[in-house]
Amino acid sequence: MIALPTYADVQAAAQRLEGHAHRTPVLTSRTLDHALGAEVFFKCENFQRMGAFKFRGAFNTLARFDAGQRERGVVAFSSGNHAQGIALAARILGIPAAIVMPADAPAAKLAATRGYGAEVITYDRYREDREALGRALAEERGMTLVPPYDHPDVLSGQGTAAKELFEEVGPLDALFVPLGGGGLLSGSALATRALAPACSLYGVEPEAGNDGQQSLAAGRIVRIATPQTLADGAQTQYLGQYTFAIIQQQVNGILTASDDELVQGMRFFAERMKMVVEPTGCLGLAALRGVAEQWRGKRVGVIISGGNIDLPRYAELLSS
Amino acid sequence: MIALPTYADVQAAAQRLEGHAHRTPVLTSRTLDHALGAEVFFKCENFQRMGAFKFRGAFNTLARFDAGQRERGVVAFSSGNHAQGIALAARILGIPAAIVMPADAPAAKLAATRGYGAEVITYDRYREDREALGRALAEERGMTLVPPYDHPDVLSGQGTAAKELFEEVGPLDALFVPLGGGGLLSGSALATRALAPACSLYGVEPEAGNDGQQSLAAGRIVRIATPQTLADGAQTQYLGQYTFAIIQQQVNGILTASDDELVQGMRFFAERMKMVVEPTGCLGLAALRGVAEQWRGKRVGVIISGGNIDLPRYAELLSS
Repeated sequence: MIALPTYADVQAAAQRLEGHAHRTPVLTSRTLDHALGAEVFFKCENFQRMGAFKFRGAFNTLARFDAGQRERGVVAFSSGNHAQGIALAARILGIPAAIVMPADAPAAKLAATRGYGAEVITYDRYREDREALGRALAEERGMTLVPPYDHPDVLSGQGTAAKELFEEVGPLDALFVPLGGGGLLSGSALATRALAPACSLYGVEPEAGNDGQQSLAAGRIVRIATPQTLADGAQTQYLGQYTFAIIQQQVNGILTASDDELVQGMRFFAERMKMVVEPTGCLGLAALRGVAEQWRGKRVGVIISGGNIDLPRYAELLSS
Repeated sequence: MIALPTYADVQAAAQRLEGHAHRTPVLTSRTLDHALGAEVFFKCENFQRMGAFKFRGAFNTLARFDAGQRERGVVAFSSGNHAQGIALAARILGIPAAIVMPADAPAAKLAATRGYGAEVITYDRYREDREALGRALAEERGMTLVPPYDHPDVLSGQGTAAKELFEEVGPLDALFVPLGGGGLLSGSALATRALAPACSLYGVEPEAGNDGQQSLAAGRIVRIATPQTLADGAQTQYLGQYTFAIIQQQVNGILTASDDELVQGMRFFAERMKMVVEPTGCLGLAALRGVAEQWRGKRVGVIISGGNIDLPRYAELLSS
């Protein structure tokens, strides 16, 4: 048995994040509300520092490092938002950071991670195992490895977004949250069960990789091949031990969205709400559209997880 | 002599707008602050209803119509944000609206205006005079013509954006505001002089059409040919009587920005701040970048006027 974090950990995370993370705005669209017949509140983590909710969990985890850990530094492996969250949090806290990234990652992402002052260690994604590399590096240098989602401090930090949402708009009838490894969803569950116990909570994963749905059905963590999806923030192969345990206990269900629906969402957010949202960030809205009938006349929350996408790719998806 | 509106009119407008206009968020970018050495606050009117500040002035004006005016309706001529602001405000207030728009306006804009329930009257922009058409229509049907900027109620309504900005972030050392016909700038001046009298206030117009600069230099309203610029919200040929009088008295200066600088701004907003901003909305940031040295260590406000741009065009500008 592992000891699961509780809402008290989310509250403690919120205190640590104060003055460091943005309290992101909650935006609404009357056009959408009219179309769906519901009142929809978007928690806009695309406006979070470094462009995604990942900063919350990263900062919360690093803020809890003891003096020795701070001195020896942090290691993370990720080609995406987790790496940048760790790099930025480490810079703020004065902790050395080494990030293991694929050598062929977009130049902009490599540059951004270095720009936050992190050491970038590249690897060949076809020949090398990044997780093994990260662990070896951590051992060799005495650094602490921070995993992208399966960690009590990481998921407690992610839960602060839903906490802020409920504090701002009050209880909701349903909340839709993007699901990759489950850090955001399990953290949101802790906040939801404390602040709006009657709220139905849904995780939303890409249709191409519904390991979360399969895991709930099987009652154990199901592993899948890396899914081919535009939602690069949800290309995970399996849930974590902590995240699965919380999701299994506290989430009402898991829905999916197709890549086409994600692109439609990106266009809607750009055209009607004037926001840049990355494909993963569109999961919640896409799923809500599919089940909207069920929430007519209700108050519904949607977490937009991030807005990090290369501009040329973004332009291509908008005009395709 | 005309009687100019005062800050009391902006306060009254704010009361009328309560519950109808969004109180738009103020967003910041640490990356930008670091680059400029200043603290910059963006008032995001791209998140306003119908995507631009124009809703404020339109609603304020229509809310002051008497019973007869409400019954007979409103006329506006515009191919842009003013038309949609009037159409939406009229729908909310139950006032019939007729909008004179060019027959070759983008289909999306014609559809959006009709979508707000307005009657769209098209004209041939090469052969017909829209102002004359609008006036004839107003006279024929007894409708009230609402001009896009040169009207005390319109400009007082626009001033509520700057009022909210100062209320949220306190006094600023400088404020940069897009300048077309001067509705937003003159309204902002009324709010600035009341709430932050020491704040330097700048209007920013497109380099290709600096009639505002010329008018301030000449001490009278200078008329120019329609400027060729990406900033379609600032393609005005001359300031109004009300707007010029206020600008002349209360604004510290007028700056300009090139189309290239506007496109750079659009990319910055998309990439770093995850916002869709139309070219006109980038005027303030573009001008600030040019004079940033002067504002090192200071607190600076920038009003983003709107985010309405066709997606294919937006995608093209992002990737060009």
